[in-house]
Amino acid sequence: MVLKIGVIGTGAIGQDHIRRITHSLTGAEIVAVTDVNKEQAYTVVERENLNAKVYENGHDVIEADEVDAVIVTSWGPTHEEFVLASIAAGKPVFCEKPLATTAEGCKKIVDAEIAHGKPLVQVGFMRRYDKSYRQLKKVVDAGKVGDPLMVHCAHRAPSAPGFSGDMALTDAFVHEIDVLRWLLNDDYVSAQVILPRNTRLADKGLQDPHIVLLETKQGIRIDTEIFVNCQYGYDIQCQVVGETGTANLPEPSSVTIRSETKLSTDILVDWKDRFIDSYDVELQEWINSTMKGEMNGPSAWDGYVVAVTADACVKAKETGGIVPIEMPERPAFYDKLDAFIKA
Amino acid sequence: MVLKIGVIGTGAIGQDHIRRITHSLTGAEIVAVTDVNKEQAYTVVERENLNAKVYENGHDVIEADEVDAVIVTSWGPTHEEFVLASIAAGKPVFCEKPLATTAEGCKKIVDAEIAHGKPLVQVGFMRRYDKSYRQLKKVVDAGKVGDPLMVHCAHRAPSAPGFSGDMALTDAFVHEIDVLRWLLNDDYVSAQVILPRNTRLADKGLQDPHIVLLETKQGIRIDTEIFVNCQYGYDIQCQVVGETGTANLPEPSSVTIRSETKLSTDILVDWKDRFIDSYDVELQEWINSTMKGEMNGPSAWDGYVVAVTADACVKAKETGGIVPIEMPERPAFYDKLDAFIKA
Amino acid sequence: MVLKIGVIGTGAIGQDHIRRITHSLTGAEIVAVTDVNKEQAYTVVERENLNAKVYENGHDVIEADEVDAVIVTSWGPTHEEFVLASIAAGKPVFCEKPLATTAEGCKKIVDAEIAHGKPLVQVGFMRRYDKSYRQLKKVVDAGKVGDPLMVHCAHRAPSAPGFSGDMALTDAFVHEIDVLRWLLNDDYVSAQVILPRNTRLADKGLQDPHIVLLETKQGIRIDTEIFVNCQYGYDIQCQVVGETGTANLPEPSSVTIRSETKLSTDILVDWKDRFIDSYDVELQEWINSTMKGEMNGPSAWDGYVVAVTADACVKAKETGGIVPIEMPERPAFYDKLDAFIKA
Amino acid sequence: MVLKIGVIGTGAIGQDHIRRITHSLTGAEIVAVTDVNKEQAYTVVERENLNAKVYENGHDVIEADEVDAVIVTSWGPTHEEFVLASIAAGKPVFCEKPLATTAEGCKKIVDAEIAHGKPLVQVGFMRRYDKSYRQLKKVVDAGKVGDPLMVHCAHRAPSAPGFSGDMALTDAFVHEIDVLRWLLNDDYVSAQVILPRNTRLADKGLQDPHIVLLETKQGIRIDTEIFVNCQYGYDIQCQVVGETGTANLPEPSSVTIRSETKLSTDILVDWKDRFIDSYDVELQEWINSTMKGEMNGPSAWDGYVVAVTADACVKAKETGGIVPIEMPERPAFYDKLDAFIKA
Repeated sequence: MVLKIGVIGTGAIGQDHIRRITHSLTGAEIVAVTDVNKEQAYTVVERENLNAKVYENGHDVIEADEVDAVIVTSWGPTHEEFVLASIAAGKPVFCEKPLATTAEGCKKIVDAEIAHGKPLVQVGFMRRYDKSYRQLKKVVDAGKVGDPLMVHCAHRAPSAPGFSGDMALTDAFVHEIDVLRWLLNDDYVSAQVILPRNTRLADKGLQDPHIVLLETKQGIRIDTEIFVNCQYGYDIQCQVVGETGTANLPEPSSVTIRSETKLSTDILVDWKDRFIDSYDVELQEWINSTMKGEMNGPSAWDGYVVAVTADACVKAKETGGIVPIEMPERPAFYDKLDAFIKA
Repeated sequence: MVLKIGVIGTGAIGQDHIRRITHSLTGAEIVAVTDVNKEQAYTVVERENLNAKVYENGHDVIEADEVDAVIVTSWGPTHEEFVLASIAAGKPVFCEKPLATTAEGCKKIVDAEIAHGKPLVQVGFMRRYDKSYRQLKKVVDAGKVGDPLMVHCAHRAPSAPGFSGDMALTDAFVHEIDVLRWLLNDDYVSAQVILPRNTRLADKGLQDPHIVLLETKQGIRIDTEIFVNCQYGYDIQCQVVGETGTANLPEPSSVTIRSETKLSTDILVDWKDRFIDSYDVELQEWINSTMKGEMNGPSAWDGYVVAVTADACVKAKETGGIVPIEMPERPAFYDKLDAFIKA
Repeated sequence: MVLKIGVIGTGAIGQDHIRRITHSLTGAEIVAVTDVNKEQAYTVVERENLNAKVYENGHDVIEADEVDAVIVTSWGPTHEEFVLASIAAGKPVFCEKPLATTAEGCKKIVDAEIAHGKPLVQVGFMRRYDKSYRQLKKVVDAGKVGDPLMVHCAHRAPSAPGFSGDMALTDAFVHEIDVLRWLLNDDYVSAQVILPRNTRLADKGLQDPHIVLLETKQGIRIDTEIFVNCQYGYDIQCQVVGETGTANLPEPSSVTIRSETKLSTDILVDWKDRFIDSYDVELQEWINSTMKGEMNGPSAWDGYVVAVTADACVKAKETGGIVPIEMPERPAFYDKLDAFIKA
Repeated sequence: MVLKIGVIGTGAIGQDHIRRITHSLTGAEIVAVTDVNKEQAYTVVERENLNAKVYENGHDVIEADEVDAVIVTSWGPTHEEFVLASIAAGKPVFCEKPLATTAEGCKKIVDAEIAHGKPLVQVGFMRRYDKSYRQLKKVVDAGKVGDPLMVHCAHRAPSAPGFSGDMALTDAFVHEIDVLRWLLNDDYVSAQVILPRNTRLADKGLQDPHIVLLETKQGIRIDTEIFVNCQYGYDIQCQVVGETGTANLPEPSSVTIRSETKLSTDILVDWKDRFIDSYDVELQEWINSTMKGEMNGPSAWDGYVVAVTADACVKAKETGGIVPIEMPERPAFYDKLDAFIKA
């Protein structure tokens, strides 16, 4: 029993997923691929020695008889279309972020999934699968620091080639948006964005860093520094402050060296090294649960919440004020999925 | 050559200073004391075996011929009066915080000192004398993390017996107000106060924790968590984020123990243990510089700035908005004093 | 293309390997099993839903046509027999430690493998596959601490139920014997064993802790504390001291908690949690290389060296003296295998 | 009431002590000095603005009426003579290490002091006054790691200009000899010295590093790496392993910096920075107790034990064997002094 997967989009992340499913994970194989650059799709099939057919386009992959489940790793603006088509075909679909480029697009997917009647969509928020975040959640859920009151975060990257406009919020911070509400079993009610003195080491015209302040329904206050040209390394920090103590996200473990009057450990540079294991766990758990007819990762609803929250952050940045985050109640349809949040 | 000191107020902190000057420090002796509770003043003189006269009141101490310099450790509301009297008498005065209970009071002292023409007043902000803050300042001033963009702080105490109203801002946070502008060689332009979900472990009706956001002239953004009922210990955190790196205030060093499935170090409980060495350094440096006719610790101007900033924080808490901090230019009179900031 | 594996011995570690090959790893399946307790073998086949035949005994498994490769996880004293039979059958064999219960037994296997002419045997020393040891080796091989001069190790377990006699040396310390010569690309020339004051918390009559001193050909001195009733947790420490610096084996990463006046992280209790990932990597790499007709893990020669060294340690413990470790030159046959040591 | 001190020897350490007594400590003043280089003595008196007479030689200092107590910081080979003269004069004497250059010399001092009938001699083993060793001792004495079974130490210096022969043992390791028996409330029964592969970065012909193994009366085993050309910094490590846990000597606290892909803290380079505070505490406590007619620091007996143990280490290095350390029982005379060991 093997899950037969069709992949739409064979760019960098698509190739990564193809490789891990083929060479590292168990229980699935790639049987169909496509890409806007068809040549590249053929190259990948050959190089990875896949027993897979190259299709004309995403819709053909989705409709192919041999395809049990779909992975969408194409260009962001096409995600919505392929996810909707997968739902229409009744096939489970794993979609890399963003679920759609607008909150409205996400909402359409949510509506379509509910209308279909069975959960099919998982969004690629891999931090929930990161060992260190899971360790932190376990500690917090066990009450080892009491009820959470505040969370202090930092999201730092050495540089951000190609970043422009609000991408620090819409591309980087979205990971915190997803993982923190999962971590806290909570939702957001307002956002504020503070613009510190700008680093001179970012691309011209790019604001960097940002500080985002989020408030949750329970009144928990989250401050996150997003600094995507921090120079020194890729560094994700998270400290939960509860009524009786604090808990810090574990740092990646590393050799401690004493040399040249310094006691030091390495800081990672590449975000892929930080979360590489998370991708493996994420896809393996998706394969396993899909085989069992279940769906318990980040849902279409989660993707929608992230989109609405990110929109509020962008607006807060523009206005300098505190922007309320208004969201409909979570449909009962999604309650049963939320294995992590319930657990 | 010994500095002869008169002490006004022999309560807890007054007794501490008397003991350290008499038994630990060098170059000074206590020759005069007073207290509203005169009985207590006599007891202290006897117990510490001082060669000191007990006076009727603070003014008598200040005017006593044998007194070279004055330490004011009486009840806060009396500070302004005794500092002004010391200036009038032309005697150096070390005043525990607050310099005065209002910004106006502080301003009067500033004006009197300038009118007198010679700096005489030092305010007891001891964190500038703390070894760990000095280590941090040295690193930041040396440019090891690049130009500062943000500072993340936490000021936590296990409990705050007797705290009420805005004391978290006016009694606890004032230390950050002073030490951070010294650390950054900068001044504040606005304040905002955020009220997280309240701990249930504080006295009824007391808001705890607070998050205070300060903006400096250079655009540096400071966020400080003040949590005075955090239960777990007395814990002062400060991280400076610069253009190329971050620097953390050193933690007090402690034995690392492996026992019962934990690797652990002790966290202090009592703030006095955290800053006890700072008080020694502070007073010894005050004695030494006073003997040389200098004054280079926290000045009356610094005390005034703290008062104005604390007032803005209190207003920001009440209004929920961003409150501008407006301050006259620093009088040239104080420029030459600022050994630390210049250094 | 899948590697078809026969497993001899379905006790605890045998079941672990069956589970990981079936549910976590890729590229192999269990097709044959046996155990002295045949009932148990049937239970495992059923519970894990294996498509595997239960054979009468190990020899039948080895000779079964459908079996490409053999895993030996039976009772220690039977290892030698089944490994020799696998070599006779020309089938790759992964044997849990010990390779044989005597150095002579290991030597017989080495001789048989050389006579066969093709490397077939891998011994289950999983620490070489541990991420933290690999990080440490990378640092040392890169010369980041200069040429190694000394290594300080500790091997601690909370308790050692069932340990008696010299098992601290022959069961626990053997892991250090293997991994340290791999880490240092070196071999041992002498051993000394020191018996510290005994803990009162071990089983009656059991010496605990031991300190073993090893000297390598290059003159590197290794001291290892082996303390199998240390109470506080399972804790593996290793520090390499080189000419210009030191490098420490990374600790397992864990949430840092501030609570009840302690800053703490968890220490593991169970050795399986410490090395669980190593087993996965070890078996996956064995499957992958076996599929390619290669063999590059710990070899029969490595198993033999460990046996000779452990014998020297036992003798050193008995005599209290410094015991030379004499070993024939490594046969050229094994030179080409030593991917790790060469790398 | 001020302790009037005569200093014999105004070299580096003599000047340090003069400075700290004059400018940092309280309760004492330097009233007499001498040095083989009399010119230097005059220079020091003038530079430090001392109200002190320069004497012809050490004996004149000792006998001077105005001298209450003596500090011996002259060339090592002269210590014995001046300490004996101080005892003869009935004056308290603080002698830098070594107490005498031979165990016999130390024994003569012990005998003279006992004959005099009142403890007068303190030896300058400053580690007992180091805050971090005191923290460690407090933890061990409180039983937080159970009864000690082993101690792992490292004594590393970046380089050792002028070191030759056995100075690593007689000059560096003597500090561990003293502080570890104080830490453990125990005495030594045997020594062994291991010579690891030599660093190429030491002076030609100098063995470096050494590993010294000591056994105590209680059977505690101590291993100490002494590596005086370790390049990377001055680094003192000590881990006590007890029946239920381990405790590590605290590291000097330092700013944690994230920069250039490293998380790092500074390691000290100069041993004086490591123990500067200890010297202050040591001398202040000596002044205070001398004023009270007490003596509770490292005694002449302690100096003698260190000399005997260091001799055994030198012999163990020569012979390669395990050398017993035989010592007479501690005279009852010294029992009452041993405030620290008893405490």
